[in-house]
Amino acid sequence: MGVSESGILWGGRGTEPEAVDRFYSVIPAGGIGSRLWPLSRAAAPKFLHDLTGSGQTLLRDTWNRLAPISGPHRIMVVTGRAHRAAVEEQLPELTDENVVLESEGKDSSAAIGLAAAILQKREPGVIIGSFAADHVINDNRRFRQSVVEAIAAADAGYIATIGITPTEPAIGFGYIKCGEPIDVPGAPDALAVEGFVEKPSLSTARKYVAAGTYLWNAGMFIARADRLLEQLGKTQPELLAGLLELADAWDTPRRGAVVDQVWPNLTKIAIDYSVAEPSAKEGLLAVIPGDFAWDDVGDFGSLAKLQSGGRKSDLAILGENARVLADSSSGIVVSETGRLISLIGVDNIVVVDTADALLVTTSEHAQRVKAVVDALKLSGRTDVL
Amino acid sequence: MGVSESGILWGGRGTEPEAVDRFYSVIPAGGIGSRLWPLSRAAAPKFLHDLTGSGQTLLRDTWNRLAPISGPHRIMVVTGRAHRAAVEEQLPELTDENVVLESEGKDSSAAIGLAAAILQKREPGVIIGSFAADHVINDNRRFRQSVVEAIAAADAGYIATIGITPTEPAIGFGYIKCGEPIDVPGAPDALAVEGFVEKPSLSTARKYVAAGTYLWNAGMFIARADRLLEQLGKTQPELLAGLLELADAWDTPRRGAVVDQVWPNLTKIAIDYSVAEPSAKEGLLAVIPGDFAWDDVGDFGSLAKLQSGGRKSDLAILGENARVLADSSSGIVVSETGRLISLIGVDNIVVVDTADALLVTTSEHAQRVKAVVDALKLSGRTDVL
Repeated sequence: MGVSESGILWGGRGTEPEAVDRFYSVIPAGGIGSRLWPLSRAAAPKFLHDLTGSGQTLLRDTWNRLAPISGPHRIMVVTGRAHRAAVEEQLPELTDENVVLESEGKDSSAAIGLAAAILQKREPGVIIGSFAADHVINDNRRFRQSVVEAIAAADAGYIATIGITPTEPAIGFGYIKCGEPIDVPGAPDALAVEGFVEKPSLSTARKYVAAGTYLWNAGMFIARADRLLEQLGKTQPELLAGLLELADAWDTPRRGAVVDQVWPNLTKIAIDYSVAEPSAKEGLLAVIPGDFAWDDVGDFGSLAKLQSGGRKSDLAILGENARVLADSSSGIVVSETGRLISLIGVDNIVVVDTADALLVTTSEHAQRVKAVVDALKLSGRTDVL
Repeated sequence: MGVSESGILWGGRGTEPEAVDRFYSVIPAGGIGSRLWPLSRAAAPKFLHDLTGSGQTLLRDTWNRLAPISGPHRIMVVTGRAHRAAVEEQLPELTDENVVLESEGKDSSAAIGLAAAILQKREPGVIIGSFAADHVINDNRRFRQSVVEAIAAADAGYIATIGITPTEPAIGFGYIKCGEPIDVPGAPDALAVEGFVEKPSLSTARKYVAAGTYLWNAGMFIARADRLLEQLGKTQPELLAGLLELADAWDTPRRGAVVDQVWPNLTKIAIDYSVAEPSAKEGLLAVIPGDFAWDDVGDFGSLAKLQSGGRKSDLAILGENARVLADSSSGIVVSETGRLISLIGVDNIVVVDTADALLVTTSEHAQRVKAVVDALKLSGRTDVL
């Protein structure tokens, strides 16, 4: 049995493995991050960017956060075929058996469900935790504490999630309505989940924050693989059947043929709808309140805030070769070109300068960037997408 | 004697030439137009750009406006050595004897004064009219009428200027305070000039417009060359001596040597200060009110207004290969790169996209662009100037 630097046990081969020993991290690295266009795009999705100034991509940050918990050899990455080389460059430790390549995106139920099915077949009783490749977390120690509690809840049969204690009435995130504490050994902070709510209005968000019983939905799900698949099968039996067929063939020479036949027909649905919400209704969902700073960096407004540490008067600058000359301006500049960028008297501005596309908007309108991407798709200008 | 399409006589060789026959246009093409950086810059000054969407550079527009008045063979261009090739490309009709090349900029008194001295030597009694290479005028017929009146006033011994009837209380222009009508044959609209005022505050500009006795100073000066030089000599005798020395040598093999010796030491002073203001005090300045739309396109705010015809809600787009996708934005985009430019929810925005520099500001802050250029000069980043 190995002991990581953090003191958490992992990769154990004992006769009665602890829950944490049975833990496997899953990183779905799929979304492009359209609201971060033209920085994020098909060929360079959000998870392949360094948005924090850490010097590392978000994917690598995610890996580094998970490796001490599950062990570096127990992290599976689900990504698109097009990103294989980039992912492997970021994660040289990643072995072939831990890469699941999607021929086309089929949303999170298929991506996480396939990982669960493959891992359950290889290692019955495995507990998996799925964490997005492109979120930002500032406190890996507290994150780990929450994951360890979630693993305990998962071991007790719950679908567990980690909800983030809101620091403001954000309207860009969904919320989790918490219920009563549940009694799970090793998860003293676990609460029942009464339900999920979609991105609220500002006034509703304020009520949620004031109530103190709502957490941000960070899309982290931790569960026994068999339990996750069981729950998925209740709402999406065909999808489950497809995933089990894929898993059966995965570690055999039939993989390619079965993938070609099954994958294209899988139902696209977010795991929030196929598993999380229905499980909450059954009383099977547990939430661990996560008391650390988290952001999904959903748009350039979030990125500006993240970069400036919340100081509105600041101008954040992102880009290794950025050359910016600014005069009483605030907001964010993302520079990929090394061109000289001059800003004069523009507030909360967002300027994203890439080789073939330039975006100029404001923090408050940054959510509308997706509409530009949609317009470009519609007009066939896919060269810049 | 030739007759142009417009019916104005030019290039006459009669025994008693009419004033218009003695007219020679002078185009000082010197200023970079720093407030239009990064579009205008040392290698591509304002007068070499098409800012009106006419399909022609401002220099060519200026030439086309003057050719019917003085005749195409009676237009002299004063420009920097660095711009010779670009100027000749724009003006293939321009002959060598009508090009005056400056080794370094010495402001308008030297540029116009040298043209006057050379032309006076070649053709005593010549009347010259100096018109900036980078202004925009929308009504060439009315412009010509004003010039013809100004030529008559010049023939009568006045230093004549054309002042523009203000259409709004602009704070970006200097003003001319008009006095009583003066009695000059052929110049029925001529008024005495009481004085010049520098760019005013908005409240002062409003008073000027309300008074109805102020015109915008468009920097157009029309005078007999001998009279212009005489007036210049009263305030700048050394400068005049230098210019006469240059003119003496100009059409001889000594030109190069004398230029090298004399030009670098000439006093830099605007003709407004050396000739116009002092002449106004002597009662020798006449103004013809010009009732046509004129703009010096001093900054991107002016350019935006010019392009949108004053409609504030519009987004003006300049650039042959411009690809702009805009969502409820107004202002102006100048594109030199062909990159896709997306604007979302930015009002009165100014975006100037060139190969090596990008400017983002607003119409109201556009005057401050010059400060960026100054800062770049100071920091030695001349590669983008």
